[in-house]
Amino acid sequence: MPELRKDPITGRWVIISSERGKRPADFQDQRGKRRGGFCPFDTGNERTTPHETLAYRENGQPDGPGWRLRVVPNKFPALQIEGDLNKQGEGIFDKMNGIGAHEVIIETPDHNATLASLPQKAVEEVLWSYRDRMEDLKKDRRFQYALIFKNEGLTAGATLEHSHSQLVALPIVPIQVQEEIDGCKRHFDLKERCIFCDIIRQEMHSGTRVVLETPLFIALAPYAPRFPFETWILPKRHVSCYACSTNEDYRDLAGLLQNVLRRIDRALSNPPYNYVVHTSPFRDERNDYYHWHIEVAPKLTSIAGFEWGSGFHINPTPPEEAAKFLRDIKA
Amino acid sequence: MPELRKDPITGRWVIISSERGKRPADFQDQRGKRRGGFCPFDTGNERTTPHETLAYRENGQPDGPGWRLRVVPNKFPALQIEGDLNKQGEGIFDKMNGIGAHEVIIETPDHNATLASLPQKAVEEVLWSYRDRMEDLKKDRRFQYALIFKNEGLTAGATLEHSHSQLVALPIVPIQVQEEIDGCKRHFDLKERCIFCDIIRQEMHSGTRVVLETPLFIALAPYAPRFPFETWILPKRHVSCYACSTNEDYRDLAGLLQNVLRRIDRALSNPPYNYVVHTSPFRDERNDYYHWHIEVAPKLTSIAGFEWGSGFHINPTPPEEAAKFLRDIKA
Repeated sequence: MPELRKDPITGRWVIISSERGKRPADFQDQRGKRRGGFCPFDTGNERTTPHETLAYRENGQPDGPGWRLRVVPNKFPALQIEGDLNKQGEGIFDKMNGIGAHEVIIETPDHNATLASLPQKAVEEVLWSYRDRMEDLKKDRRFQYALIFKNEGLTAGATLEHSHSQLVALPIVPIQVQEEIDGCKRHFDLKERCIFCDIIRQEMHSGTRVVLETPLFIALAPYAPRFPFETWILPKRHVSCYACSTNEDYRDLAGLLQNVLRRIDRALSNPPYNYVVHTSPFRDERNDYYHWHIEVAPKLTSIAGFEWGSGFHINPTPPEEAAKFLRDIKA
Repeated sequence: MPELRKDPITGRWVIISSERGKRPADFQDQRGKRRGGFCPFDTGNERTTPHETLAYRENGQPDGPGWRLRVVPNKFPALQIEGDLNKQGEGIFDKMNGIGAHEVIIETPDHNATLASLPQKAVEEVLWSYRDRMEDLKKDRRFQYALIFKNEGLTAGATLEHSHSQLVALPIVPIQVQEEIDGCKRHFDLKERCIFCDIIRQEMHSGTRVVLETPLFIALAPYAPRFPFETWILPKRHVSCYACSTNEDYRDLAGLLQNVLRRIDRALSNPPYNYVVHTSPFRDERNDYYHWHIEVAPKLTSIAGFEWGSGFHINPTPPEEAAKFLRDIKA
């Protein structure tokens, strides 16, 4: 059983995956990760994954061919779905069982497609699947949060090249999200306004950090980005949770997300990238202070001692320049 | 002039290094970083670095040969030493000039030595140089903190292979340190004890996560480590700031630090690693709540979307196993 352990000084939780129990020699294997060859996400190989939790299909049976999109539990999950949290102390320390869901969203049966190159309708379905899985996992009272993220490219952490996203449902709210929520609440207490709404208003007015706008969404380079070409995608009007969006929202977002990813691909020659969806926790999903959004970060620099030890990031590309590059590219 | 910018939601500061102003094509160069060939840190090449701020030498002139250890400003500093902070708002946002010191500690004239392989006396001098530079930079009232860190190996961020550490003096306390301090203060308010002292007591009693002890220092695997084989080195008695240590402390620490690094080298086949010194900020250096320490992390895994987007780390090696491996290795 994996464990969730809390650092008593900072309150940061970590997942200790004792099953995997990596010994020193195991880390050397990683240098040549398997790419190419057999792909468990290809059509026809459905039996090599755990049973699907969701699929959009033209025809056929569950766990058989005929699907357009498939969601399956991760075969090597970081957390375990069955069991109780069993929260307990260990002297000064705190821990609980590593209970959670870890699923893979196989975005397309096409082994060679990318999210940027898929038909827009397929991307819309990817966005639906995020909502559908969040709504389902919310019913499990052990969970407080579902984190959706995507690793594209080996150095961004993707061990399989077939285009996919991941979902991790967690019994605690991730610290990065909690810190954003705390900041939003402080602002709301002072101003009775959502700070993201204030930022969007200022950015639309100045225009220098805006990458792209559609009727419902905006993509922008944040004022204090940690990474070069970091880009945030937000609904223009106040929406506190991803799953409260409408189908019209997802249609608009699919177009904008693809457009942003294509610009990043062209500007930076198909870089590896990560994105993550930040939304309100299950227990207070509809609120006035938090604004759901996607954070996209091309993987261009590596985290060294300074960033890791200080929490300070050094970004060699001002966001005004990054936004202008992305804005000026044909996509 | 580089800028320090604050994310208005989380309060996290970033350094925007506008001088470097990296354009998309610049990131592709990075894939083949220069290694080997001319080394500006070798004896005889002193004129190719900026003027030294500190040196321990047998003989010879400043910026000439004859040194055992040399500290020089970084030729490509992340922050600029000259100027005022000029704090200002930009609508909803906050920024200040990117003022700071960025120095390189050249630990040895021997191009091929590592910190683990140097004579112990040389490591002691490295530890002295950290103190001497901190004490000097503390006099500059613009600075609140000096972060010492080391990147060993290309994938840990070292662009030059000649063994060196770095120091960055900052006008603000880094958020990672501030979060530790906040946690320590909360514990002190409740218990009137230092939480690190409490942890050390519990760890010495249980022994399962202890890697090594000397009369004055202890190396242990923390209870909730972010990384496999993450190791913390702490003074056993309460000392709030690195520079308040005695020469006896540095002598003892030099032996323990080398011993830990050798064990990591043997266990993991000379992995890249980072370490960072966490100490009290200049303005409240001597206190009862914070306990200075070194955090060492071999670079074995990479940060993917989940860690970056959640702040949750997944660690495949339980600290009890990591500590046992390091304990059992001959070093």
